[in-house]
Order: sequence, then structure tokens, then C-alpha cells
Amino acid sequence: METTQYGDHPLEDRIAALETRVRMLEDQLAVQQLLNRWGPAVDIGDSAAAAGLWTDDGVLESEISYLDGPAGVAAMVESDGQQALIGQGCAHVQAFPLIAVDGDRAVATGYSRVYLHQDDDSYAVWRVSANRWEFRRTADGWRATRRTNHVIDGGPEARELLRGGLEP
Amino acid sequence: METTQYGDHPLEDRIAALETRVRMLEDQLAVQQLLNRWGPAVDIGDSAAAAGLWTDDGVLESEISYLDGPAGVAAMVESDGQQALIGQGCAHVQAFPLIAVDGDRAVATGYSRVYLHQDDDSYAVWRVSANRWEFRRTADGWRATRRTNHVIDGGPEARELLRGGLEP
Amino acid sequence: METTQYGDHPLEDRIAALETRVRMLEDQLAVQQLLNRWGPAVDIGDSAAAAGLWTDDGVLESEISYLDGPAGVAAMVESDGQQALIGQGCAHVQAFPLIAVDGDRAVATGYSRVYLHQDDDSYAVWRVSANRWEFRRTADGWRATRRTNHVIDGGPEARELLRGGLEP
Repeated sequence: METTQYGDHPLEDRIAALETRVRMLEDQLAVQQLLNRWGPAVDIGDSAAAAGLWTDDGVLESEISYLDGPAGVAAMVESDGQQALIGQGCAHVQAFPLIAVDGDRAVATGYSRVYLHQDDDSYAVWRVSANRWEFRRTADGWRATRRTNHVIDGGPEARELLRGGLEP
Repeated sequence: METTQYGDHPLEDRIAALETRVRMLEDQLAVQQLLNRWGPAVDIGDSAAAAGLWTDDGVLESEISYLDGPAGVAAMVESDGQQALIGQGCAHVQAFPLIAVDGDRAVATGYSRVYLHQDDDSYAVWRVSANRWEFRRTADGWRATRRTNHVIDGGPEARELLRGGLEP
Repeated sequence: METTQYGDHPLEDRIAALETRVRMLEDQLAVQQLLNRWGPAVDIGDSAAAAGLWTDDGVLESEISYLDGPAGVAAMVESDGQQALIGQGCAHVQAFPLIAVDGDRAVATGYSRVYLHQDDDSYAVWRVSANRWEFRRTADGWRATRRTNHVIDGGPEARELLRGGLEP
């Protein structure tokens, strides 16, 4: 084994490198966990939990909706439409995404599905979508700043969202 | 760069902090991996592998079953009902969950789906459920102590399970 | 607190242990991320991105296809069959897998599903499969060397693939 050279702080350099690597791993898992809160929040109708995932300037955009900020999210969760889905039995399931963390910003790209309970106790796959989620590190931890969602229907919009996740 | 103060052990403090953080990451991945063994174990009919995920006092409860300990799990896997599902072609797929680790305990909250192969080679989505999994660190690693599962049917039981995962 | 014994390099040993543990975590996440690129690459028809996940000797085998190397993957993505699926709207969604890393090799075992958009805007679950993915660490990072895939149809082939992921 080489002599440890305390004068050059080689151990400190290795510790600093580890701290950077561990923070990157923690950030990836934190973003995953934040993303995984969305489905339960909207499926139980917890508008505060759903709104709390977003920055004040957060935006959710899909081909069927545009939600502006936490207040817009909360209003969607409390809407008659969403309450009807909850009463029917709905599951908004995010697939395990691609995640890219860059400093205090992160992007997650992946699929989501909405399953709906049917009268005969079967389930319909109501929506299968492509998603681009953008996040920012805030004083309170990671928050979502933008979700762009488009149903996968053979058109170019969903493909464009997925393409963004494959970029280097 | 500041002088490294070996007398105060600042490097040792940083190492200790890293050890705690790395263990938290390892625990989260270990719980994920344990959870991901359940589906394959029950879908191939490996009753020993399915039973081996549980503590001796482990319990699985759903609106259609109550399994008591590893022996109860093994009996379910070997039952005529489960064997019929396996012969038909079944896939018990856990979605990527919310995970909270607290010392030697952990909770995972999320969705699961059971897909069933049909005679015309299509697939039915037979069950979409909410799950709360509880885990304990044992001398042999993480094991499941309780799974509470309820089909998402518009009723309050599934929502209550998901709500638990959103708590701070 | 014990005296830190620099002469015995106990801090260096702890740092080395952390480096090994962090690398294991990074490898698991890297393999997950590589796997998560497959679906978007084939669903948007990016044959270069799909081919780029594989080593030169990579092989993809299923009960309906055999693809040999990156060129075979690219040809599949560009084929009339795959282009028709893309035009219809398809989502190749990998479930969150079991991952085992062993040095410069890794194996991921899990489920995948292909959802297809229908004329009435519903979705069919076209394929639910078992998968064994094998990976190798290369000079350019992790790459896939083999994917064996079989539809879950009640036969033994899919069960055999899942069984491999449960081995110690």
C-alpha cells in the first residue's frame, strides 16, 4: 500500500468525491420519490398533497388540460371530473422513468397509465401517456416545475416527449 | 482550502456522515429488490422463494385473503387457485413504490396489477390494487412483516392504504 | 470516541469501503437507466439510440424474433412491422426489475408490457412478457449483451426466465 500523504490531503479529496457521488444518488432517488407521490395524491383526492409537489410557478400541460400552479392542481383534484374518476376507482401509475439530474435541476422522462375500474370488476386501460417532468431543488427539497403529458396515439407529440429523455 | 484539522477528526465526521447516507440508499434499494422478488416467486409457483420474503410473524391481508406467516404464503402459492392462474399465464407486477426507511423498519406504498393471459392471446387486467408493505431489518437482511392489499374499486379501503404512503 | 489511528489507516479503510459501496449503488442505477432507454428508443423509432444500448455481440431473443447485434436491432426498429406499431401508438413499458450486479456483469429480471392504442382511443395490452437482460461494463459504460424475452402464456419458458432472477 502506498503511504498515505496527509500533507496533500488525498483522503480529503476522496471524501469530497464520495460526497458528490452520494449526493447524485440521493438526488435521483429523491426525484423518483417525489414523482411517486403524484399518483396516490390524485387517486385519493388529496388536493393539498398533489399541490404540494409543485413550485409556485409549476405548470402541468397535456392535450386535455392546462394547470397553472399549486392552485390549479388543487382545483383539478377537487373538480367534478376527478372526483368521478376517484369514485369509479382510478389508478394513475407512473412507470419507472429515465432520470437526469444536473445540479439543481432534474428531468424525468417516462410512461404513465391510468387504469379505471369497470362495473364488471375488470379494468380498462384508459390512458397510456408519455411524460416529461421537470424539477428544481428548492429550500424545501425537490419540487416539480413542469409536467408535459401527451397520450400515446400514434401522433408525433408523445414521441417528441420521449425523445427528450434520450438526449445525452 | 482550509487546513485539515486531524485533531478534531473532521474527516472522520465526514466519513461517518457518508456511511449513514450510503446505508440509507442501500436500505432503499434493498427494500425495492425484496419487493421485486414477490411477483416472480408467485408467478412461477416457487413457494419457498415466496415464503422466504417474510418474517415468521409476517401477514398478508387483502379483501379476498388472509395469509399467516411463511407457511400461509407457501400454502397459497401451492393452492389449486394459484396453480390455475400460473397455468393460464399470470403476471403480478408491482409498480415502482414510495419507500420510507426509518432505522430497522421500512414501508413501501404503491400500486400492483395482475395481468392474465386470455385464450385469444390478449391480456386482461384482472386486478389493480393499492398496497402497503411493511419491512423489518433482520439478521438475514430485510424481510416483509405485513402486506395490506385492496383492489381499487372506488371504495375507501384502497384510498386509505395509499394515504399512508403520503404521510411525512 | 476512540483515538483515530492514522498509522493503521483506519480512515482510509473506511473510505475504500464506501467507494466500493457507492460504486455498487451507481452500477444498479446505471443498469436501471440503460434498461429504461429501450422503451422510448423503440417507441419513437430511434434506431441509433436503440442500437446504441448493445455491445457488438449483443443478442435479443424472443419467441417471435432473433436480433443479432446493433445492426439487427436497428433493422428491427426500421422494419415495416415496428413502424406500423409506432404509427398506431405503442408503449413498450419495462417494469421496475430485479437487478444483480457482479463486478463488470449485471443481470436484470422482470416484466415488460406492450400497450397498443386502439381506434376507439382505448388501449389493448398486447404483450406481457418475462425478461432476462444481461449487461457488461465497457469502456463506454454499461451495455446490454443479451435480452431473452418470452410472452407469459402459461408455458414454462417465461417461468424459467423469471426463475433466474430469484437465484441467490
